[in-house]
Amino acid sequence: MSVIRRLPRYYRFLQELKNSGVTRISSRDLAERMGSSASQIRQDFNCFGGFGQQGYGYDVDFLYDVIGKILGLQECHPAMLIGIGNLGRAVINHMSLPSLGFSLVALFDIDPDVVGTEVGGLVVRDVATLEDFCRDSDVETVFLCLPRESAAQMADVLYKGGIRYFWNFSHYDFATRYPDVIVENVHLNDSLMTLCYRINEDKHPSPSLSADKGE
Amino acid sequence: MSVIRRLPRYYRFLQELKNSGVTRISSRDLAERMGSSASQIRQDFNCFGGFGQQGYGYDVDFLYDVIGKILGLQECHPAMLIGIGNLGRAVINHMSLPSLGFSLVALFDIDPDVVGTEVGGLVVRDVATLEDFCRDSDVETVFLCLPRESAAQMADVLYKGGIRYFWNFSHYDFATRYPDVIVENVHLNDSLMTLCYRINEDKHPSPSLSADKGE
Repeated sequence: MSVIRRLPRYYRFLQELKNSGVTRISSRDLAERMGSSASQIRQDFNCFGGFGQQGYGYDVDFLYDVIGKILGLQECHPAMLIGIGNLGRAVINHMSLPSLGFSLVALFDIDPDVVGTEVGGLVVRDVATLEDFCRDSDVETVFLCLPRESAAQMADVLYKGGIRYFWNFSHYDFATRYPDVIVENVHLNDSLMTLCYRINEDKHPSPSLSADKGE
Repeated sequence: MSVIRRLPRYYRFLQELKNSGVTRISSRDLAERMGSSASQIRQDFNCFGGFGQQGYGYDVDFLYDVIGKILGLQECHPAMLIGIGNLGRAVINHMSLPSLGFSLVALFDIDPDVVGTEVGGLVVRDVATLEDFCRDSDVETVFLCLPRESAAQMADVLYKGGIRYFWNFSHYDFATRYPDVIVENVHLNDSLMTLCYRINEDKHPSPSLSADKGE
């Protein structure tokens, strides 16, 4: 896995250390907390300049800030969110989007009972106005909190409207249809199936697959 | 990454093929759809017996069933869910849990306005009764749709009550505190930070990190 994929996790652990008042940490202690290896951590941190000091450890605040800058979290990418159901509301109400580099500027739904209501300080727009909105705005990012079929139906409108960045809960495969877009998929089903597999293995270890513990 | 981590994804793509009426597929065609390689697919499928036939491809229905069985999705692990907010409701109302190996048997919340109401066919219990419930039931799986602090507060009650399997949205680190539990974490923040990084890289490619495209 590339170091970039590991950065958000480092950032999260450093944030916890910061919150608990820890100011310095060795690669060994950090590795222990993260279930990682000290050499992996040193190698990763070397990739972007290396901030450790032999026998002295890493400066937590400094490292936290640097990783935040590499991730670009100081940016404020305007984003729209489509699908004001439970999942959409969880994202709107419970995630600290500005600290993750985003700011919601428009919400869309198809349900007439929801359109026109206020959620998280924004009035929900009718999805029928999506095409106009995309044309008139310079928003390039969408959070898709929709079922697969609905996402498929609006894929072309979004793409033609200049949307290039997708945070996608819908299981619709944008990257295959539009090779030039950037998509982060969240597959909750995959995560739960993996848990199911691990529970079964825990209860009834399978000899045929136990060789495949590697990772 | 171990083959087990890839199984849910195979399962998802095979399900889509099934739904579109495809009955046979070559490793090459499947690889193209999945953005994977044919040799990786053949190697993975060999791990659990190999069902392909040279020049003839894989039987989609058969492979779908076999992978479902390896994942153990025919099981029905009783699970409780704590936190009947937007996220909890999204899981209860919009995920097809029985087809993923689970069945919800109890819901808990702390909010007096929510306790006693019916959600997804179950009456929400008071989290104050959690300890009794754990003692009297043989449920071992919990879905935690809670903020980190709330999860931390009830960690001991859950562990002492015999809960060993966690589907965890809370960012609380159960695995470090209780090394014998099995946890699947869903880190929505990490996913969004990764999207932020990829957007920044797309807009302003950074020479210093572009060497790290590897995976």
